[in-house]
Amino acid sequence: MSDFIRVPASDLLSEFHRILIANGFDAEKASACAEVFANNSIDGVYSHGVNRFSRFVGMVKAGTVKPSMEPVLKSKNGNVEQWNGQLGPGPLNALKATDRVIELAKTSGIGCVAMSHTNHWMRGGTYGWRAAKAGCIFIGWSNTIANTPAWGAINHKLGNNPFVLAVPNGDEAIVLDMAMSQFSYGAMEMYELKNEKLPVYGGFDTNGNLTTDPSEIKKTQRTLPIGYWKGAGLSLVLDILGVVLSDGLSVAGITAQDSERNLSQVFIAIDVGKFGSTNLVQAIIDDFKTSVPETPGKTVRYPGENVVETRARNLAEGVPVSRKVWDEIRYLS
Amino acid sequence: MSDFIRVPASDLLSEFHRILIANGFDAEKASACAEVFANNSIDGVYSHGVNRFSRFVGMVKAGTVKPSMEPVLKSKNGNVEQWNGQLGPGPLNALKATDRVIELAKTSGIGCVAMSHTNHWMRGGTYGWRAAKAGCIFIGWSNTIANTPAWGAINHKLGNNPFVLAVPNGDEAIVLDMAMSQFSYGAMEMYELKNEKLPVYGGFDTNGNLTTDPSEIKKTQRTLPIGYWKGAGLSLVLDILGVVLSDGLSVAGITAQDSERNLSQVFIAIDVGKFGSTNLVQAIIDDFKTSVPETPGKTVRYPGENVVETRARNLAEGVPVSRKVWDEIRYLS
Repeated sequence: MSDFIRVPASDLLSEFHRILIANGFDAEKASACAEVFANNSIDGVYSHGVNRFSRFVGMVKAGTVKPSMEPVLKSKNGNVEQWNGQLGPGPLNALKATDRVIELAKTSGIGCVAMSHTNHWMRGGTYGWRAAKAGCIFIGWSNTIANTPAWGAINHKLGNNPFVLAVPNGDEAIVLDMAMSQFSYGAMEMYELKNEKLPVYGGFDTNGNLTTDPSEIKKTQRTLPIGYWKGAGLSLVLDILGVVLSDGLSVAGITAQDSERNLSQVFIAIDVGKFGSTNLVQAIIDDFKTSVPETPGKTVRYPGENVVETRARNLAEGVPVSRKVWDEIRYLS
Repeated sequence: MSDFIRVPASDLLSEFHRILIANGFDAEKASACAEVFANNSIDGVYSHGVNRFSRFVGMVKAGTVKPSMEPVLKSKNGNVEQWNGQLGPGPLNALKATDRVIELAKTSGIGCVAMSHTNHWMRGGTYGWRAAKAGCIFIGWSNTIANTPAWGAINHKLGNNPFVLAVPNGDEAIVLDMAMSQFSYGAMEMYELKNEKLPVYGGFDTNGNLTTDPSEIKKTQRTLPIGYWKGAGLSLVLDILGVVLSDGLSVAGITAQDSERNLSQVFIAIDVGKFGSTNLVQAIIDDFKTSVPETPGKTVRYPGENVVETRARNLAEGVPVSRKVWDEIRYLS
């Protein structure tokens, strides 16, 4: 781990802020956006935090992400609202959608905000945590560029459409943040660099057989959806729901462009202030924790459990960042 | 297939009706319940139609399903309602919840009905189809008895918690109805009876390795959630959400009883009358259908596509029922 240094969270935040200001973000937007990238890193989701930041700035420089644009309400049917993200920064658009849907839930019990023409929200869990901390159950998802074949097919027609479910758990939350592919391309690359096999099948090899070899999957690009035909179906239906609700672009429409933009996203919140009992959640977790592990001494984990521990450690000791990534960021302007 | 006969849908309906009346259903409830079992069979979901009917009647006779009980409203927060199913017939309770949540969606754009203390709803797709035909997107799920281990564990702590997403598609619907396990025990038994392997891994063998051998999985009872740790996480979180929303029993609570009852279910509907464009859905399906199949000549399928074809055939030619199952039903009283 000597290639990694521990950077204090406050340094991440100030570097991100400096660079965003230099790239057309006003002070308020730069703060909010820097905070998302810093928090994703603090929570251990480096792939959508510090490791993604340079690429995000590249999209701002290329004009794909428009720092001054804000979402506008397009249409409304009761507590279901359709917004146009106008290609503003994905994380800021998604924060705004989350805050708006929390507002709808607080007023009416449940609400839905569907946003078209937005950009990559980075880590879906960000919005689940935010809604849960505000006392709401959260159900949300985004579509993406096509990167997975339909079941029984060889070319990319499905997105990995991250799907997020969150629920308050005392002062913390239980947050599931799950892409439709068994492994992201980034995760497979990590295994390949370490010269390791994937722990379970991740796609097909050049002979059309299921494989755990990341380099074979890279050749065929036939990645595997979770649960084979089941995740493939879920991916397709999430895309359809998002497009119908937001009147935005589908996975196919996004893929037809020259870069991944104009995504469609859905945010649903349900206020559990009146219903939710922390005891109910704790009892389920307590029972879950009595699972008999396959490997003695190991414990089973619930979605989001690692986040709380990683967050505490990274806040205390600094966020682990590769020297290469950190050098790249410090020279960004 | 000589063990199978084709029974006209009207005969299924009248037999189911006769038996339900004989077991304490009033005429209206017998009609509605018979219709669910007949329609599930017509749609090709025999496992939760004709093949499950005798077992359902057994639960009525045992007092687990109470034919005269109806759901009652427990609590309400805006457009989120909590109902108690009072152990009434699962399909009738779920129809009532669906109709109520459609009403909430038509009035306010989106609604949620959470029901505690209900019984098995049979086929989750029933309620997805119903909401979609009424012009609504549907998101719903049920918890179940524990039948799958947590990821990394060996004893049952998770339900297979069926999850349903539906969206109107012209006069029909696109309906995903997906349990959290890769294969149901029923499906694995079918492969075992035919002396066949599963098409993909379905669980662990007695050596702790992943296997496609259904008889090995029967021995260990270590069935596989879709996407390994991902489906395991999804199953847990769906249970938590259902319990928080309905104030009902969790998978653990259900499993602690002597039979599978007092389930917790969630029904969310979003009216897309104002937003939904059939063209948007059709364009996505059209693109999906241009997938290049692995086996030339085959076509990819979207969730619910087979249902429409099976329904047409079964209505025209009768529902395929094994002679054994049909004989058993005809002698029921």
